[in-house]
Amino acid sequence: MREDDFLIWLAARFGAAPNVAVPPGDDLAALRVDDDLLLLGSDNVLDGVHADLRTHAPELFGGKAARRNLSDCAAMACLPVALVLNLILPHGSPPDLPHRILEGADAVAKDHGCRVVGGDTSSWPGPLAVSVTVLARAAGVPPVTRRGARPGDRLYVTGPLGGSLARGRHLTFEPRVALARALAQRFELHAMLDLSDGLARDLPRLCEASGVGATLDAARIPVHADARVSGGDPLTRALGDGEDYELLFASPGCDHPHAIEVGTVDAEPGVRLRTPGGAAPLAVGGWEHGW
Amino acid sequence: MREDDFLIWLAARFGAAPNVAVPPGDDLAALRVDDDLLLLGSDNVLDGVHADLRTHAPELFGGKAARRNLSDCAAMACLPVALVLNLILPHGSPPDLPHRILEGADAVAKDHGCRVVGGDTSSWPGPLAVSVTVLARAAGVPPVTRRGARPGDRLYVTGPLGGSLARGRHLTFEPRVALARALAQRFELHAMLDLSDGLARDLPRLCEASGVGATLDAARIPVHADARVSGGDPLTRALGDGEDYELLFASPGCDHPHAIEVGTVDAEPGVRLRTPGGAAPLAVGGWEHGW
Repeated sequence: MREDDFLIWLAARFGAAPNVAVPPGDDLAALRVDDDLLLLGSDNVLDGVHADLRTHAPELFGGKAARRNLSDCAAMACLPVALVLNLILPHGSPPDLPHRILEGADAVAKDHGCRVVGGDTSSWPGPLAVSVTVLARAAGVPPVTRRGARPGDRLYVTGPLGGSLARGRHLTFEPRVALARALAQRFELHAMLDLSDGLARDLPRLCEASGVGATLDAARIPVHADARVSGGDPLTRALGDGEDYELLFASPGCDHPHAIEVGTVDAEPGVRLRTPGGAAPLAVGGWEHGW
Repeated sequence: MREDDFLIWLAARFGAAPNVAVPPGDDLAALRVDDDLLLLGSDNVLDGVHADLRTHAPELFGGKAARRNLSDCAAMACLPVALVLNLILPHGSPPDLPHRILEGADAVAKDHGCRVVGGDTSSWPGPLAVSVTVLARAAGVPPVTRRGARPGDRLYVTGPLGGSLARGRHLTFEPRVALARALAQRFELHAMLDLSDGLARDLPRLCEASGVGATLDAARIPVHADARVSGGDPLTRALGDGEDYELLFASPGCDHPHAIEVGTVDAEPGVRLRTPGGAAPLAVGGWEHGW
């Protein structure tokens, strides 16, 4: 089962609740509560899938789970309020394992103006699983969804892409929370998400949600130095590796120094890559989730 | 490592954040946001620990996770707003497994006036794990913590106890959300929690949080019919089985028809059980968590 198909079912099945302002399928769900919008979302960090307890410190598990959630806040330009941490610990874990995971998550949270406020701890014969849920607020900045990109918009990313696993950047990336709010306050952002699965998989999601297509300019895509030490073609890595957690957004124009223009939004469906040889359909690469 | 020790560490380490009104260690954490209090908490339901996928329908996993969270809302007399569902699926799961878990959770949520609004889905080689996080509001009823019981208060539970596993009540119990709010609006509730680990383990937690002791009256403890089919002494089962999810609260007096008086709050620390033979220290039974 492809996760994307599940998300389509989810949005159809759960999109109509009366106080839901942004239904499932975006980076966070948004709820109208009194005069504010509250946003909620969550992410798992699993031993052996997203990190490896044999080589990575427990603090990195909590830190990564916090970072992934804060990056979802950045993707919607909202303000994180609190994190909730769910720990599923293997039987016989070191006594201080949950403390260290929690300290790792809270240190990251504090850097972004919020805290870990609660959670649940269970133990079982299975591997370590860390789930973090974030509560955030619009707080004066309307959430930027994936749905508003328009033909003629330009596409931007906020940093170089690719090779995230090579040197552990997937565990220590900086969620672009403050940058996202600064961008949303100064520029017209029509659609945004954070690049968790790679530009080649996440850009089609933004396009499908907005009912548009896009053309990327190969020469403009910023390739991270880590992509050059990872083997293979660096541009392919920048498009497909995932775990960059930079923002991708569509805007009529954005001259912010951290916005790197990488292409355009088109009326024609599908995503294309323009190279010196012309524009050709972009293979949907990146990380495909499923079960 | 005992979970209770971890919770003591947590409350000391994480209790001082400026917008935190109720720190970790209670049923939910509470945050001041504008004029309202927002409450957050979460609970795991793990295959092989809290339910068994070989014999229990996936809907029951989602349902139980939702019920546990809503029961935490009841424990603080707050109003649930939304649930977030984290699914960790075994590789090769049936394609509709997450749909069925989600439907199970959402059906329970709807019965209590809220919905599932988001979450994350991952897959791995380990067993099924379901984590649900709840967002709730005080909405006019100040949260009832575990900390306010006073000597002279009476202790009440909201229903019969024991034998929850015998006939599957641990999967289908009714969270006492509406009852809790009705009680909190009509009576003076000094402290409350939901009985997840058994009266013999949860009452000492309420006493420790409040800095008091308590005496239970064995003759008044309501024993569930399921406790009589589970083998062993029914009263011991009512005190120790856990997974009842009835409320336990301390009040100067409460003549609500669903409030069953079971004992008194004392100045003397510790928890005692009064029988025809006299009052004796209650063995701390119930379910002890740890890793």
